[in-house]
Amino acid sequence: MRNIKLIIEYDGTDFCGWQIQTKNRNKYSIQEAIQKALKIILKETLILTGSGRTDSGVHAKGQVANFKTHSDIPIEKLHKSLNGILPHQIRIKRIERAPISFNARFDASSKLYRYTILNSEVGSPFCGRFAFFMPNRLDMDAMRKAARYFIGRHSFSAFYAKDKKRNASSAIRTIKKVSIKKEGELINIDVEANGFLHNMARRMAGAILLAGLGKISPNDIKKSLDNHKLSPKKYTAPSLGLCLMKVNYS
Amino acid sequence: MRNIKLIIEYDGTDFCGWQIQTKNRNKYSIQEAIQKALKIILKETLILTGSGRTDSGVHAKGQVANFKTHSDIPIEKLHKSLNGILPHQIRIKRIERAPISFNARFDASSKLYRYTILNSEVGSPFCGRFAFFMPNRLDMDAMRKAARYFIGRHSFSAFYAKDKKRNASSAIRTIKKVSIKKEGELINIDVEANGFLHNMARRMAGAILLAGLGKISPNDIKKSLDNHKLSPKKYTAPSLGLCLMKVNYS
Repeated sequence: MRNIKLIIEYDGTDFCGWQIQTKNRNKYSIQEAIQKALKIILKETLILTGSGRTDSGVHAKGQVANFKTHSDIPIEKLHKSLNGILPHQIRIKRIERAPISFNARFDASSKLYRYTILNSEVGSPFCGRFAFFMPNRLDMDAMRKAARYFIGRHSFSAFYAKDKKRNASSAIRTIKKVSIKKEGELINIDVEANGFLHNMARRMAGAILLAGLGKISPNDIKKSLDNHKLSPKKYTAPSLGLCLMKVNYS
Repeated sequence: MRNIKLIIEYDGTDFCGWQIQTKNRNKYSIQEAIQKALKIILKETLILTGSGRTDSGVHAKGQVANFKTHSDIPIEKLHKSLNGILPHQIRIKRIERAPISFNARFDASSKLYRYTILNSEVGSPFCGRFAFFMPNRLDMDAMRKAARYFIGRHSFSAFYAKDKKRNASSAIRTIKKVSIKKEGELINIDVEANGFLHNMARRMAGAILLAGLGKISPNDIKKSLDNHKLSPKKYTAPSLGLCLMKVNYS
């Protein structure tokens, strides 16, 4: 028995997210696409464990997943075959053997998400699939001030989408890093945390955007974190701007 | 009568190129899409003059076009309406009044094309529409040496696609600049010339690629330019990697 680890990139636009859906099966999931490709190559029905779900339309440059197999196919051959079968929106960047105990989900110590905003007068045909177009003037100082309130250990009950089917046992998460960088017309909001609740990265990006637009004050974020209540204006930034950049294992 | 100048960006993937096609009308052209949008807004049938044709699948970040109109619609309103109607793959970046004599095609003094290669082991879902994926090892020195031979005034009869319908009166063109830059896994070949023949930019990129792969020697390019003959191996690099970056007017 071998344990195989995959580092995966995907353009999530045309997919219903990472997780296989039992309902709403009109769109394919990333996990399903990779499991099907593995079944064709290895003739085994496998379970692919991802580091976590990404929502419909969310992208990844460093999703991590693992699966166990009885096959002794050479790793290099498996890599080429997988990329040969997978749709072009999904690429296996790296593939390697992992210790038999490695679990991509439970062993993850932190994740880095990036939210990208295209802040220009006119939209772009070149990054329209990967950046949220926002033509309004944004106050970068207010955004940076807003972002800093997130750093540290907080209850994020005001910053995620409650979902009966996947109730989190606790809404407490630790934000290790938030940075906002402007590169030309693109603004990248990087958030590293020990874990993310459902829609949490998009709610955080949404709150930072509202602060940049002057619709909330940066201090409103502190209030929401302290009171565990939604700020008067809540906003979930659209999925197309979000990308899972890296999963860290300690 | 006003003369209006447009600076246009487009993702050419889904289009049959700039020029309206009379045959093969199963794909839309960029010119047609913009002319139709102008007709809806201005209620006039206009002729849009582009700086030159771009082939099917070729992109632009700085295509220039002009048209004459009797309408006195404010420029800002026309800009917003155009981007509102046009498909998302086409954006009007800028719009301005031009002197009545301005002609986007005949007044162009030079054009800058960029050919982008993704030189990595694995393809990318993020730049797959805009870069030619080449996993083989490329000799950058050979590519730069090959590129330098193009600089200056030459007959490019070995480096374009002869076409009965659009015979060029002369194959002599002047290459003002060729530069090759590597940024991470992307290689950008920039070529500025006073004009480009049909497929010339892709044939030049193809020859530089062949030199990088060691399939021709850089000196073979000099021979082809001097003898006006095709090199023993000719290669037209795929259209998806090519982008019209800028049109200069003196």
